[in-house]
Amino acid sequence: MPLSFETNMRLKFPFMAISLQLSMIILFGFFVGYENDGNYVQQINATNQSEKSLELYPLFQDVHVMIFTGFGFLMTFLKKYGFSSVGINLMIAALGLQWGTFMQGILHHHKKFGIDIKSMINADFSTATVLISFGAVLGKTSPVQMLIMVILEISVFAANEYLVVEILEATDIGASMVIHAFGAYFGLAVAGVLYRPGLRRRRHDNEQSVYYSDLFAMIGTLFLWMFWPSFNSAIADAGDHQYRAIVNTYFSLAACVLFAFAFSSLVEHRGKLDMVHIQNATLAGGVAVGTCADMEIQPFGAMLIGSIAGIVSVLGFKFLTPVFATKLRIHDTCGVHNLHGLPGVIGGIASIVAVALGATNKTTMANQAAALGTSLGTAIVGGLLTGLILKIPIWGEPPDQNCYDDSVYWEVPEVEGYSHYFHEHDDHSQLQPEA
Amino acid sequence: MPLSFETNMRLKFPFMAISLQLSMIILFGFFVGYENDGNYVQQINATNQSEKSLELYPLFQDVHVMIFTGFGFLMTFLKKYGFSSVGINLMIAALGLQWGTFMQGILHHHKKFGIDIKSMINADFSTATVLISFGAVLGKTSPVQMLIMVILEISVFAANEYLVVEILEATDIGASMVIHAFGAYFGLAVAGVLYRPGLRRRRHDNEQSVYYSDLFAMIGTLFLWMFWPSFNSAIADAGDHQYRAIVNTYFSLAACVLFAFAFSSLVEHRGKLDMVHIQNATLAGGVAVGTCADMEIQPFGAMLIGSIAGIVSVLGFKFLTPVFATKLRIHDTCGVHNLHGLPGVIGGIASIVAVALGATNKTTMANQAAALGTSLGTAIVGGLLTGLILKIPIWGEPPDQNCYDDSVYWEVPEVEGYSHYFHEHDDHSQLQPEA
Amino acid sequence: MPLSFETNMRLKFPFMAISLQLSMIILFGFFVGYENDGNYVQQINATNQSEKSLELYPLFQDVHVMIFTGFGFLMTFLKKYGFSSVGINLMIAALGLQWGTFMQGILHHHKKFGIDIKSMINADFSTATVLISFGAVLGKTSPVQMLIMVILEISVFAANEYLVVEILEATDIGASMVIHAFGAYFGLAVAGVLYRPGLRRRRHDNEQSVYYSDLFAMIGTLFLWMFWPSFNSAIADAGDHQYRAIVNTYFSLAACVLFAFAFSSLVEHRGKLDMVHIQNATLAGGVAVGTCADMEIQPFGAMLIGSIAGIVSVLGFKFLTPVFATKLRIHDTCGVHNLHGLPGVIGGIASIVAVALGATNKTTMANQAAALGTSLGTAIVGGLLTGLILKIPIWGEPPDQNCYDDSVYWEVPEVEGYSHYFHEHDDHSQLQPEA
Repeated sequence: MPLSFETNMRLKFPFMAISLQLSMIILFGFFVGYENDGNYVQQINATNQSEKSLELYPLFQDVHVMIFTGFGFLMTFLKKYGFSSVGINLMIAALGLQWGTFMQGILHHHKKFGIDIKSMINADFSTATVLISFGAVLGKTSPVQMLIMVILEISVFAANEYLVVEILEATDIGASMVIHAFGAYFGLAVAGVLYRPGLRRRRHDNEQSVYYSDLFAMIGTLFLWMFWPSFNSAIADAGDHQYRAIVNTYFSLAACVLFAFAFSSLVEHRGKLDMVHIQNATLAGGVAVGTCADMEIQPFGAMLIGSIAGIVSVLGFKFLTPVFATKLRIHDTCGVHNLHGLPGVIGGIASIVAVALGATNKTTMANQAAALGTSLGTAIVGGLLTGLILKIPIWGEPPDQNCYDDSVYWEVPEVEGYSHYFHEHDDHSQLQPEA
Repeated sequence: MPLSFETNMRLKFPFMAISLQLSMIILFGFFVGYENDGNYVQQINATNQSEKSLELYPLFQDVHVMIFTGFGFLMTFLKKYGFSSVGINLMIAALGLQWGTFMQGILHHHKKFGIDIKSMINADFSTATVLISFGAVLGKTSPVQMLIMVILEISVFAANEYLVVEILEATDIGASMVIHAFGAYFGLAVAGVLYRPGLRRRRHDNEQSVYYSDLFAMIGTLFLWMFWPSFNSAIADAGDHQYRAIVNTYFSLAACVLFAFAFSSLVEHRGKLDMVHIQNATLAGGVAVGTCADMEIQPFGAMLIGSIAGIVSVLGFKFLTPVFATKLRIHDTCGVHNLHGLPGVIGGIASIVAVALGATNKTTMANQAAALGTSLGTAIVGGLLTGLILKIPIWGEPPDQNCYDDSVYWEVPEVEGYSHYFHEHDDHSQLQPEA
Repeated sequence: MPLSFETNMRLKFPFMAISLQLSMIILFGFFVGYENDGNYVQQINATNQSEKSLELYPLFQDVHVMIFTGFGFLMTFLKKYGFSSVGINLMIAALGLQWGTFMQGILHHHKKFGIDIKSMINADFSTATVLISFGAVLGKTSPVQMLIMVILEISVFAANEYLVVEILEATDIGASMVIHAFGAYFGLAVAGVLYRPGLRRRRHDNEQSVYYSDLFAMIGTLFLWMFWPSFNSAIADAGDHQYRAIVNTYFSLAACVLFAFAFSSLVEHRGKLDMVHIQNATLAGGVAVGTCADMEIQPFGAMLIGSIAGIVSVLGFKFLTPVFATKLRIHDTCGVHNLHGLPGVIGGIASIVAVALGATNKTTMANQAAALGTSLGTAIVGGLLTGLILKIPIWGEPPDQNCYDDSVYWEVPEVEGYSHYFHEHDDHSQLQPEA
């Protein structure tokens, strides 16, 4: 069996995880302290509301739930990949929030800096990009590859975010462009480089949901859906801006749900609803309203954006994803292009229209267009380069027949509790090569 | 096969969902803006605490979790109806919060109005009535029927709420009467009109839980239980009233749990506990203490109310629900009468006693009794009329043999992941008529 | 069959539950009111921030979620014991929070006292000790025994907490010692007294997870992990102390995750990850940083503590737990020694080091060492005495062959939904003795 399918992680995975964590501790020892310690500059100029008060803390916790429970459970829809979805999601986010804290702090301060609630929110945000990309390559990569992707993607993200906010002075309060579109296209670029012709011929046996895995995924969907107003408002200016971000996101998501249900029924066999659409497309309204969330777009404007996002997302799942897999040789496991990619682009375009209509005077159409362009550009270039590094056949990626299967990297419960459920007449083709 | 069992939703469901959502966007365009925009009157006179601060936002988010995760997962106890429970719950609430925002805003302002956190809480509240009624008819109705019920029930709810609060000047801070009793009796009235003799003879094969579906339901139970203090205090006056609503609900629920466990064991075979009681009756204390939640009833008074509610709820599940199904020809799928109906009435009665004992001077015994009476009356009349409309045989309701089965309206995973779980020797009697 | 295996709970369980709940109502009637009622002393001197504001309420709700959803679902990993895990967890916590409110209030005030958010947080905290001990005896005890343990353990806990805080004047803001180490060693002492040689020979058939029960357990893990910063900061002094408790816990947990993953892979067969470690050891960083959470240990110091805790916890699960079961005759079902015991002790020791390094001047090394010693001592003595009481063979504990099986105390769904899942060729050895 080829070297690339040596999936035994005993040496390389612990070595890499420990090395990275020790590096974080050392970096934090030199560069990171508490806000207002005297020795440190503040992470972000505290608005009145957040100075040592807990006002932003509930919003941080909502975002925290989205990152760990939302993203984690959303990806448990695969019948045999729940451990990895929720477990590796936790690992990615735990490393990512440390690296994101460091990268964003250093870029904005160039020296020692202090932590406050807002920097914790930004740290959580930075992990979202990797979790979105994780969705594109879910089931086809190893935990070692994901550790590498965390470091590379968050570095590129932090640079692009700095560029968009500090240099281009664009606005993207809910991060439609710098997180959602960025994470999706970065992940698609990685998935393209890592494309496996062997998975192309037919849908992989494991790449399916079962009844209860679809219910677990709904836990993720709902916590993302419910807390999205917090995501889009968490770092908004206190007062009217933050209020509008909450209200607009609330109504955009509501409108998106109705259109996602309607179009799911329209495009499916006999008008039935498809769980993939309900799990994902209902969230597109949260993504798409992100950039404009704190602008005076009015509730009905938010609902229009959400409606369009819901429609585009369902149509993307139905018609684009298959084309991507076959024609473009990009296999997008979770369909992040439809949940984060297209709605993120819609969010950027919506902000250009909103500026044109006078919904804000904090930015210009050109700034917004430039922000969208650089976000897509850095995502694709960064993703391609990252994909090339991940393609080096030493990171323990799974062989084709073991894709989407926890048992490659996890101890899984024995037959009567596991295989029994899924493969009563298991042909044992899923056994690991070494066995 | 009769017209009424044409369950193909391709045309009518998308058409209705899209029409309703477009109507919402148009209504919001004309009538709804942001609070304090200058162009709009305020939704509710802001207390000092809520003026553009985020103090109420965490309470809103707790209520939001109750509506979407709490109600949604509570109903996943049926073995084959989890997609509908959590999915249609999302659809109902997404439409309901828009319609509730509009109806309540127009009734209270008669003109353009603005959105703030409190109006979002009230919008979420209004959806709760429909979700309670949904529980009574769960498994026996189509998504199209539920869209209709959202519009009709929230209209009646908003009218009754206006009557109770503005005209009768009664108090019902935790909405025992105007939400819980109202939603339950409305749903029972609908269920009565839609009664299916064919489901009467014996318990439907699908109307059962399996082991893991009962665990999913506990997700719903716990999030409802934990956040109920937020539900009962979210729109209370800031300060002492809000504090009391939190404290009273906390202790009422705790006492309710012990009595629900004790009585479940008392009435069941060999003293065993019944998951139906644990999932539902443990919550009755939150319902029953609602109307009195912000009154000075003292913690032990709250515990008494919770205790009574827990007992009544278990006894209701054990003895009343079967009688309702057989004698009254009202089949209450989730037993909402025991969780919301009876405890809601207890809540109203408790408030009359509390007024008599001097726990509040904000209302009178007559006002409270009138509020209880009108809530029950409008619920039953509204439910009967709604039931008649839903009975028109064009809304795609499922035939008897396909009740409580997601596969009528949803794409469900294939045999090895679905039927395999539930019906190893499936007699295929569950297949859709068209198949 | 022997008296001790009479598991019919019809008489004793309801009788005890009702008696205890009525006692609580009576005690509350005499001793408990609202804060600032005039008639009552305040529970705790309110800091400016918490006086009738809701600032602490979101932290309370986070802790509340940890207690009910976090602990409840964390224990659902056993394939046949999910109802008990999440259900009896609810019952324990509901009784415990009432008894904890009373015990802590009386100890600190010696007379009538009032409830505020902080006392609700402390009440929830007190239940955590019992829930930790519950983990040690999970599957081997009856609900009646758990009711008794609630009353006894919280009494001892409240006495020890009073001793540590008021007499020794030690600091333990995140309760590494007074809750985590205390709860673990109390539970281990109970488990030692209740040791069953019959369960020793081989791993019990039921003492295993299945695929989906491990996913349910991850719901518990994640909600504990995400909200741990709230647990460690909820009763900290407002301002810098509370901020530091949040920041330190956030980073300690993140570092802990990486080391837990790395060491899980290091010690397992072929470098695979073990769900037991991911579910539990990833949380050890929250426990261990507890005592020092509000001290100026710097983020990298918190990360060091979390790293050590993650390593020790995984090694404990792998090497210590089997030794405990065979050599010490202490069978620790959930491995609470590795999640709460050892990390709790690490937390106490870390605080001694932190004092030595000047990270705080609120306590001394001697005070901290004394607090650790008394916490361990009272836990072990209290646990041994409680174990002796629970060993009296009248509390309906399950016979060996029915351990870890919900069907002893719960109505469980019929064959096709339950046994079918787990035991296609069930040998019926699991049937209850009476059957």
